[in-house]
Amino acid sequence: MRIARVVGSAVSTIKEDSLRGAKLLVVRDASVDDQITGEPYVAVDAVGAGEGELVLVSAGSAGRFTATTRDTPVDAVIMAILDSMEVSGEVTFRKG
Amino acid sequence: MRIARVVGSAVSTIKEDSLRGAKLLVVRDASVDDQITGEPYVAVDAVGAGEGELVLVSAGSAGRFTATTRDTPVDAVIMAILDSMEVSGEVTFRKG
Amino acid sequence: MRIARVVGSAVSTIKEDSLRGAKLLVVRDASVDDQITGEPYVAVDAVGAGEGELVLVSAGSAGRFTATTRDTPVDAVIMAILDSMEVSGEVTFRKG
Amino acid sequence: MRIARVVGSAVSTIKEDSLRGAKLLVVRDASVDDQITGEPYVAVDAVGAGEGELVLVSAGSAGRFTATTRDTPVDAVIMAILDSMEVSGEVTFRKG
Amino acid sequence: MRIARVVGSAVSTIKEDSLRGAKLLVVRDASVDDQITGEPYVAVDAVGAGEGELVLVSAGSAGRFTATTRDTPVDAVIMAILDSMEVSGEVTFRKG
Repeated sequence: MRIARVVGSAVSTIKEDSLRGAKLLVVRDASVDDQITGEPYVAVDAVGAGEGELVLVSAGSAGRFTATTRDTPVDAVIMAILDSMEVSGEVTFRKG
Repeated sequence: MRIARVVGSAVSTIKEDSLRGAKLLVVRDASVDDQITGEPYVAVDAVGAGEGELVLVSAGSAGRFTATTRDTPVDAVIMAILDSMEVSGEVTFRKG
Repeated sequence: MRIARVVGSAVSTIKEDSLRGAKLLVVRDASVDDQITGEPYVAVDAVGAGEGELVLVSAGSAGRFTATTRDTPVDAVIMAILDSMEVSGEVTFRKG
Repeated sequence: MRIARVVGSAVSTIKEDSLRGAKLLVVRDASVDDQITGEPYVAVDAVGAGEGELVLVSAGSAGRFTATTRDTPVDAVIMAILDSMEVSGEVTFRKG
Repeated sequence: MRIARVVGSAVSTIKEDSLRGAKLLVVRDASVDDQITGEPYVAVDAVGAGEGELVLVSAGSAGRFTATTRDTPVDAVIMAILDSMEVSGEVTFRKG
């Protein structure tokens, strides 16, 4: 899964019916110490993520395997909010 | 999902049967403030998008999960037309 | 879908059984005005494409959603032959 | 499959229900002689891998085809721990 | 499908059960004239390929659509051994 930070949101009135009510968030890939490394893209939120949070994004068909995205044309879903990460024995990120 | 702008269209007479009637649009990936960032590719339109509009494109198997692309060999579908986007509290795009 | 030009063909005697009879074409990604932009790869032909033609290639699981590739280990299929493309109101490609 | 080294771990309290109990490891793509070549991402562990081990990561829908990740929104899974690799007749990696 | 050359092999004792007996080969993407162009990765062999052979690798979910990889967490499979390739009317590769 990609490590990403939620940086914003998107609004769409005209969209595939199965996406009614889906929360569209703008995210950017990030490093293990919460530095942004990638360009913005849009993911559907499945876990109540908010702006500024570091999350995990599943891409591809995995995007349809959450309770809120089942059978939708979604190719990127936020499926976890990160509390902390540790690399080589050092804490690189801690939420809060 | 990729943020993309519709820039044109493609015509194909000889194509897989399941694509009869599919609208083939030429799109290019774009930034949150509607600047083009990527090279052209072709996506099937599932929401009535028109040239110049900023849209969301789902790639991969998600391309088959719209009413118009079910069970077709489509790997990129326009599944939402963007009204607006907001990043870090600022509106970066508003359709108009 | 990727815009690609058919540039050659490949022959394989020893291959997965489900590929018997499959036509293996060498393709390269191309621009909307038929200039080659990418390196060669191999796609299965589902529409009778020939060398020199500009085509659409579907990648990933979409490669299995044509009549000729159903349930095969194919990850790239030619599913349309392009007649023309138009970008920003100008015809960039016309077959002929 | 990608050759990758386990370099750390991630903790997430708020996540998709189907991920309860999943072990989230931070991995980086690596070469056949165990040199790191890529940026960190997160994979679910299906084989009891530990930090420092060289593993194989399956990406995409393959991520759901282990006993521990079936039907989950996982797009990267550690499905093998490497004992050794040999390239051009030379052992490039041996565990231990 | 990717054009790739088999350059070595990998051994793994601890792996997902469904991979018991799977032959893990190290491959590198190659050009139509058998020059290596990419970094090593691991693919499961479904056709009896050997070191030095030029093969086709199917990536993603296609990796599960061979007799030997059905329902396994495999995202790259060797599904054809190339005999020859021809580009622009010239033979660029012939096995021998």
